[in-house]
Amino acid sequence: MSEVKAKLLTQIAEPMTSSGNKVTVVGIGQVGMACAFSILTQNVSSEVALVDVNADKLQGEMMDLQHGSAFMKNAHVSAGTVSAGSRLIVITAGVRQKEGESRLDLVQRNTDILKGIIPKLVAQSPDCTLLIVSNPVDILTYVAWKLSGLPKNRVIGSGTNLDSSRFRFLMSQKLGVAPTSCHGWIIGEHGDSSVPVWSGVNVAGVRLAEINPTIGTDADTEKWGELHHEVVNSAYEVIRLKGYTSWAIGLSVASLASAILRNTYNVHAVSTLVKGEHGIVDEVYLSLPCVLGRNGVSHVVKQILTSEETKKLQASAILMAQVQAGIKF
Amino acid sequence: MSEVKAKLLTQIAEPMTSSGNKVTVVGIGQVGMACAFSILTQNVSSEVALVDVNADKLQGEMMDLQHGSAFMKNAHVSAGTVSAGSRLIVITAGVRQKEGESRLDLVQRNTDILKGIIPKLVAQSPDCTLLIVSNPVDILTYVAWKLSGLPKNRVIGSGTNLDSSRFRFLMSQKLGVAPTSCHGWIIGEHGDSSVPVWSGVNVAGVRLAEINPTIGTDADTEKWGELHHEVVNSAYEVIRLKGYTSWAIGLSVASLASAILRNTYNVHAVSTLVKGEHGIVDEVYLSLPCVLGRNGVSHVVKQILTSEETKKLQASAILMAQVQAGIKF
Amino acid sequence: MSEVKAKLLTQIAEPMTSSGNKVTVVGIGQVGMACAFSILTQNVSSEVALVDVNADKLQGEMMDLQHGSAFMKNAHVSAGTVSAGSRLIVITAGVRQKEGESRLDLVQRNTDILKGIIPKLVAQSPDCTLLIVSNPVDILTYVAWKLSGLPKNRVIGSGTNLDSSRFRFLMSQKLGVAPTSCHGWIIGEHGDSSVPVWSGVNVAGVRLAEINPTIGTDADTEKWGELHHEVVNSAYEVIRLKGYTSWAIGLSVASLASAILRNTYNVHAVSTLVKGEHGIVDEVYLSLPCVLGRNGVSHVVKQILTSEETKKLQASAILMAQVQAGIKF
Amino acid sequence: MSEVKAKLLTQIAEPMTSSGNKVTVVGIGQVGMACAFSILTQNVSSEVALVDVNADKLQGEMMDLQHGSAFMKNAHVSAGTVSAGSRLIVITAGVRQKEGESRLDLVQRNTDILKGIIPKLVAQSPDCTLLIVSNPVDILTYVAWKLSGLPKNRVIGSGTNLDSSRFRFLMSQKLGVAPTSCHGWIIGEHGDSSVPVWSGVNVAGVRLAEINPTIGTDADTEKWGELHHEVVNSAYEVIRLKGYTSWAIGLSVASLASAILRNTYNVHAVSTLVKGEHGIVDEVYLSLPCVLGRNGVSHVVKQILTSEETKKLQASAILMAQVQAGIKF
Repeated sequence: MSEVKAKLLTQIAEPMTSSGNKVTVVGIGQVGMACAFSILTQNVSSEVALVDVNADKLQGEMMDLQHGSAFMKNAHVSAGTVSAGSRLIVITAGVRQKEGESRLDLVQRNTDILKGIIPKLVAQSPDCTLLIVSNPVDILTYVAWKLSGLPKNRVIGSGTNLDSSRFRFLMSQKLGVAPTSCHGWIIGEHGDSSVPVWSGVNVAGVRLAEINPTIGTDADTEKWGELHHEVVNSAYEVIRLKGYTSWAIGLSVASLASAILRNTYNVHAVSTLVKGEHGIVDEVYLSLPCVLGRNGVSHVVKQILTSEETKKLQASAILMAQVQAGIKF
Repeated sequence: MSEVKAKLLTQIAEPMTSSGNKVTVVGIGQVGMACAFSILTQNVSSEVALVDVNADKLQGEMMDLQHGSAFMKNAHVSAGTVSAGSRLIVITAGVRQKEGESRLDLVQRNTDILKGIIPKLVAQSPDCTLLIVSNPVDILTYVAWKLSGLPKNRVIGSGTNLDSSRFRFLMSQKLGVAPTSCHGWIIGEHGDSSVPVWSGVNVAGVRLAEINPTIGTDADTEKWGELHHEVVNSAYEVIRLKGYTSWAIGLSVASLASAILRNTYNVHAVSTLVKGEHGIVDEVYLSLPCVLGRNGVSHVVKQILTSEETKKLQASAILMAQVQAGIKF
Repeated sequence: MSEVKAKLLTQIAEPMTSSGNKVTVVGIGQVGMACAFSILTQNVSSEVALVDVNADKLQGEMMDLQHGSAFMKNAHVSAGTVSAGSRLIVITAGVRQKEGESRLDLVQRNTDILKGIIPKLVAQSPDCTLLIVSNPVDILTYVAWKLSGLPKNRVIGSGTNLDSSRFRFLMSQKLGVAPTSCHGWIIGEHGDSSVPVWSGVNVAGVRLAEINPTIGTDADTEKWGELHHEVVNSAYEVIRLKGYTSWAIGLSVASLASAILRNTYNVHAVSTLVKGEHGIVDEVYLSLPCVLGRNGVSHVVKQILTSEETKKLQASAILMAQVQAGIKF
Repeated sequence: MSEVKAKLLTQIAEPMTSSGNKVTVVGIGQVGMACAFSILTQNVSSEVALVDVNADKLQGEMMDLQHGSAFMKNAHVSAGTVSAGSRLIVITAGVRQKEGESRLDLVQRNTDILKGIIPKLVAQSPDCTLLIVSNPVDILTYVAWKLSGLPKNRVIGSGTNLDSSRFRFLMSQKLGVAPTSCHGWIIGEHGDSSVPVWSGVNVAGVRLAEINPTIGTDADTEKWGELHHEVVNSAYEVIRLKGYTSWAIGLSVASLASAILRNTYNVHAVSTLVKGEHGIVDEVYLSLPCVLGRNGVSHVVKQILTSEETKKLQASAILMAQVQAGIKF
C-alpha cells in the first residue's frame, strides 16, 4: 500500500470484491462490446467482466471502459480469460455471420468454440444463468445447454427478442405510435424462418387483425406482411450497410439481463427448450414468449397459434433436430 | 392456481423469490416512506420491504406503492412486521423530532423501540448492513450496533451526509455552480454541534480558503460561516414550515444505499465508530467521510483538521459518551 | 456578487435561467408533492416549480427538495404563487376526496379554485400542456379546458392511467407476470363507473378472454371481474388505511409527463374530449387510450367495444354533461 | 395513411416533430457512434440525428439504433447530411488519429472538412451549442468557432474532460476509492502537453499534496507523477491495443451534453477561449474547468496554479497560436 493511501485512509474492514450482480460477457467483438456497454450505461449491472482470447484487444476494451467509469456510476470493469462468481454470462463468442451467409452454416465451427469455454465458465460460476447470443442462436443455445450441465431454465438464447423489437419499431413507423406501445411477437427460429404471430399484434388491446382480417396474408392490400419480411432482412441489410449489427442486439441483451438480474418476471421472446410446446417433440431450442427472472425462464406463455403458425414452428423444430443430430460434441 | 393461469403459462422452473438486493425500511412515517420511494424510483433496489407496527398504515403504504409498480420497472414491494433476507436495513422508526426539541432528548425512548426490533431483524437477515436514520442518529447508531452484534463496519448512521448535501446546495446558490460541483464536508454530530471543515470546501480543487483566508471565521466580511448556521437551522426551519423533513433525508439515504448495494467505494459523510480517529478515545459514533461498499464502511478518510475542529469533534464525542453511559439497555 | 465568487469565476456569458423542460406542479398536498418528487427522481424534468397558496408549506417543501438536489442530478426547484415559461403544468390543487365522499360532490368547490389559477398560469406559460389531476378529474379537466382557452389536445386529465396501472398490478399478482407485461385498459370515468375493456386484457398477445370466454362476467367461476371491483375500491381502501393516496398517482403523472416532454407517442389512458368517439355526442372529457407527445394528445385509439361497454361509456358521458350543465363559471 | 391506421386512430392534433432537446452527431465513426449511443442509453436526449457523408454506413447505423428504440424509452433516431433545429451539435468528423501520429499533424486536413460542414449546420440550427471532439481538439475548436460565427461560450471542445476522467480512474485504482470520489483536474492541451493540477487532487477535501508535498515531482518516491504519464499515454495505448478509442470519449461527451441540455451548471474541464486567463494573450482554445449550462460555458474557474503550471499553459497557448497562424481558412 502506498504511503499516501496509508496516511489518507484508516481501514475498517476488508472491502468486498463483488457486488453480487456480476455479468460476464464472453467475446468482445462489436456485438459483445455493445452488450457490455448497454448493460453498463443503463445500470443493469455495476460489475462487468470481459472474456476473450485476444489479449491485446481485451486489455484495450477494458481500459477504454474503465477510463469512462466515473461517468457510469463507478461501475467495475475487469477482463481475463475466465471469470468467477458471475450471476449472468452472455456468450457472444463465435464466428460472425457474413453477408449472405446462412445461420445454419456456422454451427459446427461455433460449437467447437463453445466446447472450449462453456465448461470452464460454468465451473467457476455455478449459479449463473447462461445467455447465448452467438449465431445460429437456437442451435448454439442447445449446444450450450448440453455442454453446461445446467438446468434448462438457466440456459437461454437471445432469440427473437431482437426480431420482435425490430417488428415493433417498423409497426411504430407505420402507425406513428411509440414502439413500446406497439405490441407484436415474432417467435420460432431467430432469422429467416421466424414466425410473426399476427393475432397478437395490437395497440392498446386492439388487434390489427380485427381491423384488417387479411393482415399478414397475401390477400392483404396494405401488405402488412412486408413488415415481417423487413424484419427478416434487417440483419442482412444492416450488415450490408455497416458491416455488422451491434447496437440493437446489445440493447436487446441488456433488456434480458435486466429482467433476469432484477427478477422482474417480464415476458420476452427468448430461445428456450420447447419440447412439449405446440406439439414439438424434439429436444430443441426455439423462441417463445417466456417469463424471465433470477431463475432464468420460469414460465413459457402458451400462445394460441393458427395451424399454419404451428406448422412453421414444428418445421423449424425438425430442421433444428436434424442439424443437431450432426453436431460432434 | 387459476385455470386461466394454467392455460396461459407452462411452468419451467420455480421463480426465485428474491432479487438478492432486498432493502427493508423500518418505520413508515414521512422519513421512512421518502427513503423507500427514493430507493424505488431511482432504481437503487428492485425489492423493498416495509416494516411497521401500524398494520393499517403499513397495508395502505404497500398498496399505494404496488399500484405504481408498473411505473417503477416492476419493483417488488412487500410489507410485514419483520423481513428476512435483506441486504440493507434502513431504520427510521422512532419518535420524530418535534419543533424545538433537541435531538438528545429522544435517546432513551428510541432506544427502547430499537430493543424491540433490531435483534429480530438481524436474526432474519444476518448478512445485512444496518443504516440508522432515527434521531439522535449518532447515539442511536451506537445503540443499534450494541443491540445487533454486527461488526462495526456494517452498522452505519445516515449522519451528516444530509448536512453536507445541504451545505453544498447553499454553496451552490451563492456561487451559481451545481451542487455536485460544490465540495464541502460537514462532520461530527448530526445537528447542532456539527463541524464544517472549511479547508475542504472547494470548486474544481480551488479552496475557497485560499481565496478568502478568513472563511468560516468571525473575521470574514462575506460571512460564509452563515452557510453552516443555515445548515444547522435547516431541519428546524423545514419542520417549522412543513411540519417535518422528508425528501432530502430520503434522497440522502438512497445515495448511501446505492453506494452500499452497488459496491461503489464512494466517500460519504456517515456516522461510524470513531474511536481512534482524531484523538477520540471513547466508543462513540460520529460522522466522518467514509468509503462505502457492500461491506459497509471499509475505510475512514483521515481529514487534516484544525485544532479547533478537532476540539469540537472531541467535545461531541465526550458528550455522546456521557449520554451513552446513561442508556438502559 | 461575493468577492469569493468574483475571484473564483470569470463570467463568460449570462447563464440561461431555464432548461426548456420546466414542469410546474400546482398544489403541494400529498398528491402534488408525490408528482413533483416522482418527476425529479426519475429525471423526467430537471426543473420543477411548485405553486401553492400556503406560503409557509410552499417554502418548506421547496427547501426540502433543494436540500436533496445534489442527489437528483442538480435539478432546479423553485416555488411561488405563479410560474412562467412552463412546458407542462400539473394541477393537483383542490379539496381532497374524503373517505366515502363521491367524486361528483367536489365539482363546484374545485371549479372555483381553478377559476382563480388557470387563467393566470396559462397567460404566463402560453405554450404549456395542462395535466389535471384534481378530482373529479374528468369534469375538472373539462372545466380547465374551458377556463384555459387552450386547444383540446393540450388539456388532459390523468384519468384512468392510474386505474389501468392498478389493474395491471392486480393481474400481475394473479398470474406471476410483471405488471409491464400484463396488458389491460380501464377507460371511461376515473373512479366508480370506470369500464374495464376485457377484450384487450392480454399477456404476450394472448387474450385472457380467449382462454376464458366468460371473463369479466358473472358467469366466470374464477371471478376475474373482482379485479375491476378491487381497482374501483383501491382509492377508497388506501384512503381508509393511510388517509390519502399519493405514490401511485405521483408515478402515474410522472409517466404521462415523460411521454409528453420526451415526445414519445406512447399510448396512455387519459381523460380527453371524447365527443365523437363511441357515439358520444356531448362535449365531455372521459379516459380513452391516447397517443401522447409534446403536443399533448395527438390521437385517440378507437377500441372495439362491446355494446355493453359502449353503453356504460355513454351513460358516463350523459352524467358528466348533466353535472357540467350545473357548473357556474 | 394506411386504412388500418385510419381505423385504429382518430387524429386530434398534429404531432410535434421535435422534443426540443435534439442532439446531432456529425461523423459516425467509432467515436461518433459511441457518443450517440452514450447519449441515447443514458437518456441525455430522446432525439439524436446522425450526419455523415457515407450514405450506406449512415443508413446502417441509423437502422441499427432504431431497431433498439423500444429499449431506449422510444428515442427518435434520424440520419441525413444536415440536421435542423438542434440544441447541441457534436462534431466527431475528421481523420482519426493514427498510432504514433501527433495531434498537430491533423489540423489542416480536418479544418478543410469542418469548412464544408460547420456553416451549413449552424445555419440550420442557429440556437445550437457546438461541441467539438475531432482532434487536435483545441485547435479545431478554435477553427469551428471562427467558421461558425457563434459567440465563444457556445463553441466548446471536449478537451481534457476525458483526460481528467482517466486521471480519476487511475487515482481510484491506487487508493481503492470510487472515481467519482477521487478529484483531480487535467487542464491545458488535450493530449501530450496537458497539465495536471496537483494542488487540486483530493479525496474528501484532503489534498494528497498535504500528505505528500513532493507529489507530482521527480522527488516523489511514490511516483504519483506516473499517473499523469499514464493519462497521456492512454490514448496511444488503447489505440495500440484495440485500434481506436471510443467508449470513454463517448461517455465523456455524454456527460458534457447532459450538463448543457439539463442546464446544470456543473464544472467540467473543457476547451474554451482562454485569452485573458492565466496570462494568456493569444486567442486560443485550451481546457480549463468551466461551468456548463444551456448557454454553453457561463464561467471559467480561476484555478490557483504554480508558476510552472502557468508556464506550461502559456507554452501550449503560444504553440496553438503558431499553428493557428498557418491554417488556411
